[in-house]
Amino acid sequence: QRFVDTWTIIRNELLDAFKAQGVPPEAVEWYKSSLDYNVPGGKLNRGLSVVDSVEIFKGRPLTDDEYLKAAILGWGVELAYFLVTDDLMDGSITRRGQPCWYRVPKVGNIAVNDGGMLKSCIFVLVKNHFKREPYYVDLLELYQDMAYITETGQLVDLITAPEDNVDLSKFSLNHYKTIVTFKTAFYSFYLPVALAMTMCRMPVRVEQTTPYQIALDILIPLGEYFQIQDDFLDFAGTPEQIGKIGTDIVDNKCSWCVNTTLAVASPAQRAVLNANYGRKDAACEARVKAVFEEVGLREKYEAYEREAYEQLSAMIDEVPEVESVDGGAVLRKEAFRAFLEKVYKRSK
Amino acid sequence: QRFVDTWTIIRNELLDAFKAQGVPPEAVEWYKSSLDYNVPGGKLNRGLSVVDSVEIFKGRPLTDDEYLKAAILGWGVELAYFLVTDDLMDGSITRRGQPCWYRVPKVGNIAVNDGGMLKSCIFVLVKNHFKREPYYVDLLELYQDMAYITETGQLVDLITAPEDNVDLSKFSLNHYKTIVTFKTAFYSFYLPVALAMTMCRMPVRVEQTTPYQIALDILIPLGEYFQIQDDFLDFAGTPEQIGKIGTDIVDNKCSWCVNTTLAVASPAQRAVLNANYGRKDAACEARVKAVFEEVGLREKYEAYEREAYEQLSAMIDEVPEVESVDGGAVLRKEAFRAFLEKVYKRSK
Ligand SMILES: [Mg+2]
Ligand SMILES: [Mg+2]
Ligand SMILES: [Mg+2]
Ligand SMILES: [Mg+2]
Ligand SMILES: [Mg+2]
Ligand SMILES: [Mg+2]
Repeated sequence: QRFVDTWTIIRNELLDAFKAQGVPPEAVEWYKSSLDYNVPGGKLNRGLSVVDSVEIFKGRPLTDDEYLKAAILGWGVELAYFLVTDDLMDGSITRRGQPCWYRVPKVGNIAVNDGGMLKSCIFVLVKNHFKREPYYVDLLELYQDMAYITETGQLVDLITAPEDNVDLSKFSLNHYKTIVTFKTAFYSFYLPVALAMTMCRMPVRVEQTTPYQIALDILIPLGEYFQIQDDFLDFAGTPEQIGKIGTDIVDNKCSWCVNTTLAVASPAQRAVLNANYGRKDAACEARVKAVFEEVGLREKYEAYEREAYEQLSAMIDEVPEVESVDGGAVLRKEAFRAFLEKVYKRSK
Repeated sequence: QRFVDTWTIIRNELLDAFKAQGVPPEAVEWYKSSLDYNVPGGKLNRGLSVVDSVEIFKGRPLTDDEYLKAAILGWGVELAYFLVTDDLMDGSITRRGQPCWYRVPKVGNIAVNDGGMLKSCIFVLVKNHFKREPYYVDLLELYQDMAYITETGQLVDLITAPEDNVDLSKFSLNHYKTIVTFKTAFYSFYLPVALAMTMCRMPVRVEQTTPYQIALDILIPLGEYFQIQDDFLDFAGTPEQIGKIGTDIVDNKCSWCVNTTLAVASPAQRAVLNANYGRKDAACEARVKAVFEEVGLREKYEAYEREAYEQLSAMIDEVPEVESVDGGAVLRKEAFRAFLEKVYKRSK
């Protein structure tokens, strides 16, 4: 709730600055609608991770100023501008239970520019609140580098699995890993923790220890685990469990399920997939699901999850207690542990 | 030519770094096509302005390292990512004599992501070449601030003059000024000189003098003059003069010509404009042009140009010779003068 309240502050700050430039009132109204429609209303996991991690690293409740700062960095992650353009490029229908922004009357392709503006907001906010901090430039680079990596993942995704052209020969577990790492793991898993580490002034290196590399080594596989779980639940989860009905098969998604099945499918099974994957038809979807069951996808997932969990757990146990350069924070394994448990519990 | 040669260096640097991330070869191919298709081939005025201005401020030929640095900043301006998305949002057909990128087969809406990647390139290049410079963070802010301002202008433009809905009551000279300032003047006129000033380490303030504000006060009106001239030549220029046939009237452009005419039109003339502006029809276009002539648009333009030129000229004469903080450069009025003369001569 406190985190959500920060959004009101941020939103008004952005709108006031926007207005002060002397743009016409219609443009201010439009910008307000875009912010209100596209930013709040998600699960806020990514944004809250920044605040939670800062609290764990500092090892105490945050002051009001620290909370605001951490929350701003978190909202910088939640300002997920690329969701707006992703929906447009994918031709998606709804997001978070409402029509995608580009499908709102009068918006259409203007959503492209609105997406760009959401991205620019991050830099406005970071400038307003962090310009005097010694780590200001690190924040700018972090958001910028992650944006580029996410765009790279988006590109690989778009040219591998265009919705209108089903071609499973383009799929592979390798491609899948690349897409997941670049499109999801860096942005949604590494970025929140790296922002918290930066705000807590974790050193880039102390003797043999490289804290950001350690975070990367844990959070990229964790993001991959999250996405594999997400893909598996899309196929195997009940609507109560996942809060929606899975559509990855009919949407021609390059998901873990299809890639894992393709890797072991017989020629006959592959033929069934080729003929039925990515078709907007319930009978086709059922035939694909039957092949998934035939190859034992459930067991494969359970084995994968067990191993992923154990490996990540072991890595987290090894996280060293590095002190921050200002002495006010410590890199603590609990921050990573909390992240892992949040993901692990989703499927239980 | 030297400037164009730098592009090859930059392009390979970007592609090598992209490849090194371990993305699939199809993605590298795609990225290469996008860079080659969208970046070189323009008039390069904006990019060259950076190099020219640095040379003028330093008052001597540049060393190889200085040239490379200035050229990189110039290509950062030429990486005009928003042209790619502007064409898509406007539904334009061609740019620089070839189909717009989004109209190339297989590209389509992927152009949105490609546009984002072009923008990210700027920050990759600046990081690679300026990270150790004391003005690194100023460059990041400058590119980022100008992007946000350009997006703001784009928004005002998109909601004022949608191509599919002609409504001249939304037009006004005031709106026009806002769009031109935000969409064109900051990015194409202020940014190149401000980058050169930053690279030459011009101070933000010395006693009563504020060099960046002085640049802004000259270059924003100069950008406006450029755009007004561009709009006027679209109506009155010969194809030999402008290298194309004007289409602003049929494209429902919120141009200086229509706004200036609307400001003085009689009810009858306004009715003619309402009935004929923005129609894809040569007879309609001719009727609009007749109204432009009736209100004396040519004389109005000549008067405007004379006054704009004299005012700008007077302001440029007042530019003080501010020394850079490292003593290696001087703010010289010749940089502004060169810019003004380049624009002025276009119409002669
Ligand atoms: Mg997508
Ligand atoms: Mg999508
Ligand atoms: Mg999913
Ligand atoms: Mg446009
Ligand atoms: Mg356009
Ligand atoms: Mg024009």
